[in-house]
Amino acid sequence: MARLKGFERLTNVDEALSTFFKALKPKRLGFESVSVEEALGHVAAEDIVAPDDLPPVDRSAVDGYAVRSEDTSEASQFKPKKLRLIHRGAVGRGQAMRIWTGNPLPRSATAVIMLEHARQLKEGSIEVITAVTPGENVSRKGEDIKKGEVAVQSGTRLQPHHLGFVVALGITNINVVRKPKVALLSTGNELVEFGRKPKTDQVVNSNRFVIAGLCRESGAEPLYLGIAKDNEDEIGKRIIDGLEKADVVITTGGTSVGAADLVPIVVSKLSGPGVMVHGVAMRPGMPTALGILKGKPIFILSGNPVAAIIGFEAFARPTIQKLLGVEDEPRPVMRAKLTKRVAGALGRRVYLRVKAFEKAGDFLAEPVRTRGSGLYSTMTKANGFVIIPEDREGLDEGETVTVHLFGPLAK
Amino acid sequence: MARLKGFERLTNVDEALSTFFKALKPKRLGFESVSVEEALGHVAAEDIVAPDDLPPVDRSAVDGYAVRSEDTSEASQFKPKKLRLIHRGAVGRGQAMRIWTGNPLPRSATAVIMLEHARQLKEGSIEVITAVTPGENVSRKGEDIKKGEVAVQSGTRLQPHHLGFVVALGITNINVVRKPKVALLSTGNELVEFGRKPKTDQVVNSNRFVIAGLCRESGAEPLYLGIAKDNEDEIGKRIIDGLEKADVVITTGGTSVGAADLVPIVVSKLSGPGVMVHGVAMRPGMPTALGILKGKPIFILSGNPVAAIIGFEAFARPTIQKLLGVEDEPRPVMRAKLTKRVAGALGRRVYLRVKAFEKAGDFLAEPVRTRGSGLYSTMTKANGFVIIPEDREGLDEGETVTVHLFGPLAK
Repeated sequence: MARLKGFERLTNVDEALSTFFKALKPKRLGFESVSVEEALGHVAAEDIVAPDDLPPVDRSAVDGYAVRSEDTSEASQFKPKKLRLIHRGAVGRGQAMRIWTGNPLPRSATAVIMLEHARQLKEGSIEVITAVTPGENVSRKGEDIKKGEVAVQSGTRLQPHHLGFVVALGITNINVVRKPKVALLSTGNELVEFGRKPKTDQVVNSNRFVIAGLCRESGAEPLYLGIAKDNEDEIGKRIIDGLEKADVVITTGGTSVGAADLVPIVVSKLSGPGVMVHGVAMRPGMPTALGILKGKPIFILSGNPVAAIIGFEAFARPTIQKLLGVEDEPRPVMRAKLTKRVAGALGRRVYLRVKAFEKAGDFLAEPVRTRGSGLYSTMTKANGFVIIPEDREGLDEGETVTVHLFGPLAK
Repeated sequence: MARLKGFERLTNVDEALSTFFKALKPKRLGFESVSVEEALGHVAAEDIVAPDDLPPVDRSAVDGYAVRSEDTSEASQFKPKKLRLIHRGAVGRGQAMRIWTGNPLPRSATAVIMLEHARQLKEGSIEVITAVTPGENVSRKGEDIKKGEVAVQSGTRLQPHHLGFVVALGITNINVVRKPKVALLSTGNELVEFGRKPKTDQVVNSNRFVIAGLCRESGAEPLYLGIAKDNEDEIGKRIIDGLEKADVVITTGGTSVGAADLVPIVVSKLSGPGVMVHGVAMRPGMPTALGILKGKPIFILSGNPVAAIIGFEAFARPTIQKLLGVEDEPRPVMRAKLTKRVAGALGRRVYLRVKAFEKAGDFLAEPVRTRGSGLYSTMTKANGFVIIPEDREGLDEGETVTVHLFGPLAK
């Protein structure tokens, strides 16, 4: 694609993503086997099937006495039923056997009396003060899951209870989707590395921490390639290096239409298909470019941190999710009333930063700023985004909007 | 506190937590300094103050030409204004100087013309085709933050944009709250360790993975103490070991009122004040106990995994948040309509597991099960909880409820 001087045409956000996905055809990455101890937050690469019934046998769910339920009928505090204690074998008529949580139910027993619903008498028998129905206080064989059923579906992001389930089924290793590796390249003559004192015409490279953090949060593994000067050869070499080491390349800086904005040019020269989209009808993030090199996605994000974050959210996060094979994992959203009118930008999707809070039972969203894509404070003062659609001149005071939360509710 | 045989009195959930907090007085733990590279997800232990203005000087926000804004007034495509290019010094009347993103604004310049709004002419001058106002395309000194202002507030869970902000301010290390260490003890004669084939009267210890995962998700560091047999001495020794190594102790199993339910007895014998609450008016999780030993909290949770999860959510998570000094970090919630009537349990708070999903623009919550606290499948088939209050006999079909989500929306 030829470079668009001054972005004569901006691509709509949805169209940009669908064009990009049509060309990239992002597929789930391969899998690796990890121990359950390491599996939290990974994504199951296949259905995890129960190798056996769970529980494998009928088990007592409580500490108490295994009985035949019919022997307890009409038992009460005032009319206790007496049962003879036995210690092994099948539970016969009028008999009871001490049982602990998790123990297999003895033969012929059909229910369990909880310990506190029985009184032990001296002569080797008990008094039952409540009736139980068949199956009461029993975990039935296969009640949690039956052999061959799916315990955890392929594509599930593994949470604590999934791991517990898998372990309870006797499974110790899980095939999980390999974490996408994301190579990060920062470009710009003005940048210096973190920890070095910048001169007045220099800027500390802070974007790498932002993008690396976003990658980690979305389940990818960032790999930092360093800072490239605004030089075609240097940028090109680093990108090729990144493509060899990683599944995704993200660059920040050098995406506008200034003379130093070399990354899209370099990508177009490297190999096909190169840059698919350059210039998106969004604010911030307008100079975002999306490319494909050697079948791998490359996201060319703004050097302005807030624009880079929005570019990541709009394009890189959904791509990482495809590579992980997770279905839609949106940020949490809430509905809130806008505290004041804000202007949009007809034809562009505006990502308005807002501070959402609760007041007297109402949820309110206070606009922080629509401009200032270079200002971190527009993010740190906010806890969510509101999207102003392309076809709206603005949003009204008191209008109910959807807030995409990235932080806890404000006070 | 004396042990309550059969839980003659159950404590209300809210009362249990407030009684416990009144006695424990949980305070934020001490801090440690970590590199920004390691700080994601940690909690800032103090306000992070800007050591300087950011930007430290007026800077160009774009690639273009520094100008005096008045020299561009009424410039347009049809009536361009010609300015003479200079290469150093102050920008005089009728002059312009090439400038890159991030460069300090030259003396006497008041705005920047974007590159694409100017045409370079051969004879060392440019034609400007748009007017700029004073300050346009300039990042003002201190515009993002002023020296001495708070960039990140104490108690903030550090997200990617916070790290970027801190780095942009030249800060490389952050004082963060030390992660609470949580010692986990599993109790029960029936338990065998993960990876070992259980006999029919044995159960694999899966709870440790569940509780360890919940600890990690809430920002704590789990430390596994192993399995203790149902033996007072053994349980006591392990708990003392846990108190020495960790800030919090969590046990699972042995909290009901059966003869093998030793943990609350052991805790009461160890030292004061011991068990503060034993038996909570909740389902599942009724046998939960809360104790304090050597000033540290101990959570005695059910051996049934779902009951253990609910006990953790109700009591351990809020305590860990206090130790981290983070304000309320609730799980995301949504409002949904219940697809069918469910029974509650008057006097008890019921944590109903539901599957929340969207259908034709409506959000619906389908009850999975209110019982079965030992069944993992009641968690894995659900993605959220609905709380049935103590004073409700049940919830009605079609009633709008609040779902506390722990997983993505179902299909």
